[in-house]
Amino acid sequence: MLKGYTLPLTPRGTSSLAPMPPWHYVGTCLAVEYEANAEAVASFLPPGLDFHSSRCAVYFCDWQYSSESGEEYLDPIRSQYRETLLLISATFQGSHCAYCPMIWVDQDVALMRGLTQGWPKQIGSTWITRSFDMPSKAGPMVGPGGKFGATLAAKDRRLAEATVTLRETTTQLPTPNFARAVNMRHFPELVAGRHDRPAVHELVQLKSRDVQISTIWKGEASLQYFDHPYLELFSLRPEKVGDGYRFSFALTVDDLLLLQDLRTP
Amino acid sequence: MLKGYTLPLTPRGTSSLAPMPPWHYVGTCLAVEYEANAEAVASFLPPGLDFHSSRCAVYFCDWQYSSESGEEYLDPIRSQYRETLLLISATFQGSHCAYCPMIWVDQDVALMRGLTQGWPKQIGSTWITRSFDMPSKAGPMVGPGGKFGATLAAKDRRLAEATVTLRETTTQLPTPNFARAVNMRHFPELVAGRHDRPAVHELVQLKSRDVQISTIWKGEASLQYFDHPYLELFSLRPEKVGDGYRFSFALTVDDLLLLQDLRTP
Amino acid sequence: MLKGYTLPLTPRGTSSLAPMPPWHYVGTCLAVEYEANAEAVASFLPPGLDFHSSRCAVYFCDWQYSSESGEEYLDPIRSQYRETLLLISATFQGSHCAYCPMIWVDQDVALMRGLTQGWPKQIGSTWITRSFDMPSKAGPMVGPGGKFGATLAAKDRRLAEATVTLRETTTQLPTPNFARAVNMRHFPELVAGRHDRPAVHELVQLKSRDVQISTIWKGEASLQYFDHPYLELFSLRPEKVGDGYRFSFALTVDDLLLLQDLRTP
Amino acid sequence: MLKGYTLPLTPRGTSSLAPMPPWHYVGTCLAVEYEANAEAVASFLPPGLDFHSSRCAVYFCDWQYSSESGEEYLDPIRSQYRETLLLISATFQGSHCAYCPMIWVDQDVALMRGLTQGWPKQIGSTWITRSFDMPSKAGPMVGPGGKFGATLAAKDRRLAEATVTLRETTTQLPTPNFARAVNMRHFPELVAGRHDRPAVHELVQLKSRDVQISTIWKGEASLQYFDHPYLELFSLRPEKVGDGYRFSFALTVDDLLLLQDLRTP
Repeated sequence: MLKGYTLPLTPRGTSSLAPMPPWHYVGTCLAVEYEANAEAVASFLPPGLDFHSSRCAVYFCDWQYSSESGEEYLDPIRSQYRETLLLISATFQGSHCAYCPMIWVDQDVALMRGLTQGWPKQIGSTWITRSFDMPSKAGPMVGPGGKFGATLAAKDRRLAEATVTLRETTTQLPTPNFARAVNMRHFPELVAGRHDRPAVHELVQLKSRDVQISTIWKGEASLQYFDHPYLELFSLRPEKVGDGYRFSFALTVDDLLLLQDLRTP
Repeated sequence: MLKGYTLPLTPRGTSSLAPMPPWHYVGTCLAVEYEANAEAVASFLPPGLDFHSSRCAVYFCDWQYSSESGEEYLDPIRSQYRETLLLISATFQGSHCAYCPMIWVDQDVALMRGLTQGWPKQIGSTWITRSFDMPSKAGPMVGPGGKFGATLAAKDRRLAEATVTLRETTTQLPTPNFARAVNMRHFPELVAGRHDRPAVHELVQLKSRDVQISTIWKGEASLQYFDHPYLELFSLRPEKVGDGYRFSFALTVDDLLLLQDLRTP
Repeated sequence: MLKGYTLPLTPRGTSSLAPMPPWHYVGTCLAVEYEANAEAVASFLPPGLDFHSSRCAVYFCDWQYSSESGEEYLDPIRSQYRETLLLISATFQGSHCAYCPMIWVDQDVALMRGLTQGWPKQIGSTWITRSFDMPSKAGPMVGPGGKFGATLAAKDRRLAEATVTLRETTTQLPTPNFARAVNMRHFPELVAGRHDRPAVHELVQLKSRDVQISTIWKGEASLQYFDHPYLELFSLRPEKVGDGYRFSFALTVDDLLLLQDLRTP
Repeated sequence: MLKGYTLPLTPRGTSSLAPMPPWHYVGTCLAVEYEANAEAVASFLPPGLDFHSSRCAVYFCDWQYSSESGEEYLDPIRSQYRETLLLISATFQGSHCAYCPMIWVDQDVALMRGLTQGWPKQIGSTWITRSFDMPSKAGPMVGPGGKFGATLAAKDRRLAEATVTLRETTTQLPTPNFARAVNMRHFPELVAGRHDRPAVHELVQLKSRDVQISTIWKGEASLQYFDHPYLELFSLRPEKVGDGYRFSFALTVDDLLLLQDLRTP
């Protein structure tokens, strides 16, 4: 009998790209709040979600992951990945939520776990300034004046650049955030005549447990999206850049809430 | 309205990781036929397929791809990828077919197109000797005595190495081959309590059209799979190595045949 | 006793990044002739070379390499690399030559062999359309109307894009070319006070033997260099784009001609 | 006039792979002390150094770098790199020092700065467990029981794996260490007949200033080197594994001490 959670399913079940949940995560994010063009934001919302505001936030994250018993973090090429994701504001049945139109990661395992949760992941290259907690011209301290940068590229083109200069701590996470994120799970059909009728097409709400959040630092930010011949990130480029943030967090994922089946009969 | 074939779905529909089919491919393969342990082969077959023989073939392929109107081959980082895949022998309802237990590619676009067809793709690094059609100590000629190598690695560990020395042309492709390949499409559920009841789980038969095959060269081969802590390729390691092959081919994919829904009610 | 040609030197001498010459190469190039700003061209010339004309050529190359007895092409990750290089026109003591102001490769072995020859190599990502000699929407044929693309990126920023549409064969290589290329070998000092007095600083003329050149195809071309915050390729951007070329060639390198020591006493 | 510190030298001097020193570094290391075969250690020593003991140490380091005014850490793909290096014990003119027979980095800028200092750098892939200072199944805490892993691979083959479990703090760095490291600067000749008479071949002692060292954690370790067809790391494999360490440090490099010219007249 074949075992595993995602393909490949195999006799021992140890080859699955993403193993059976729970999945444990810990990471550090650099985030920037901004406002995009309101019509553009509305145009990226899937059926079932309504426009709320032009408020967006981009997150550049440095993650480490392990499965329940895998200790993948000890073979870190299996465990570490970097991610850039965009959240836009929306409402579902009248209450405020966040929706992710585009996201990039740099490891296949993260891509597969993401697809399972409805994250529209592609492979991209994210780089984020690190602090080593030591005063040096080679890096910032986590504290007032500490300046961090982040960049995103995909397929040899740079897509985004940001900087955040820390000023003070806050108890507020950036908005929109992961707390009530709604994704679209989607798996297409390839049978001729059914290319536009996906096998899976549903709105889901992310669930996470055992969430921990570090001290949150906040300050001023810069953010730039570059033109691109086909990736539509530039459509959501900042018209007004807000605050920047830096914080670490940990969470566990092993559940999801189905909100709405979007398939048409 | 959001457009596209796979995530992300966007207003213009140009951001989808895999665009709407048809997908056109052209590439060159180095292949090695071999026999694995019969019990091992049987243990990798999904429900619906029966054991046929211990005959396997591994393919190392250098691909270039374009969508119908995208001309991706002119921005070749969007188009080119390398792939290693394993086919094992099986029968479906009494007739001979091929099944792919494991496959590695080096581009996200290929991974996503593959998942749609049921290929159990992961990211891996494939390298294949090239011929530049010029006598040189730096590379072989396509002809008698021309020696080619190929390697596969994933996550910084080498998984396989092969060599093929061409001797003569043949009209026979290696066996098993793509002509009647059966895949398992699979997309899991993450809702708690349903982790073992995938949303999509079905046997499908690949369909391709406009297939062209170059002259097929054949000769002797070597093949080695290395131990690995979790990827089960080594379970299908060669007990007896057969012939090696080198050929190019082109094909178009925009359809699939559903053979059997494997979900249990 | 330590053995080898470049660092690391080791007891067996098999660990050297670049092994003892001769080095054998075979590859395929896509090239574009163009004219840059004459003052810009002059400003990139080293002492000892004089301005000749504003004529430049950029080469995108797909290489395979082996040492004398290493058969590296059978473990192709040791052997294959892609390269983008720029040649500008110059004269040395009154006779026409070519000088390379910038070059990018994607393998450390190529970088080290290059430094030894005075190529100012950095790591960059080059992609070049391939032909598989089969009519397909996924790739061009080598013949009239065959359209090829190439791109260069470094550190997640795209630097250059080119296309070449083949029209006819020719017996002329693009100009400037490798036939009389002059490089600057350079190895700095780090001892305080001597940072501007390199240990090695000399003009050298490349020597190659056993050169073979395939049929040369020629046609119209496009070429674009992008702005960059610190890499000065854009200073040599095309003011007028000339012909494009595609050809393969093979050569062996194990010698160099010293033209002039540039160190100041 | 061309400007810069290493190739390429250009009109503005901003394209040099390695810019003019000083170079500022900050990073975190995982290190393991061990004993190798004494004859093997002796066989890796260059002329001028004598055998001291079989004591070795391997360092897996996560670095961030900036030049004096470049703020490269804000465009972190220019600044961050990971490194694995081996130090063996030696004496120079009777006093104890450390010598580096092999080292791998994952960025060209680090490779070039390294060559300038005599580090025998090649490109390799290093991965090191991170701590995010938050209790999680996805990563260790820096404290008693915190378990860290590190791996090294080059050209798709894994070379080394280590783990360190922290137990207590110490004031002693591992031995041998960077404090009195001796390197061999080396730049070969390619002119025929002079391949074995390098242009630069000298023993140098590293100099660094503004060194800061964090709290040093120490504990038990595991370490394994794998066989390899040509890279001789396995010759220095551990016969007895000692303590493991984790610490951060910062330093600045802009000088070097010449110990001995190794060229033969």
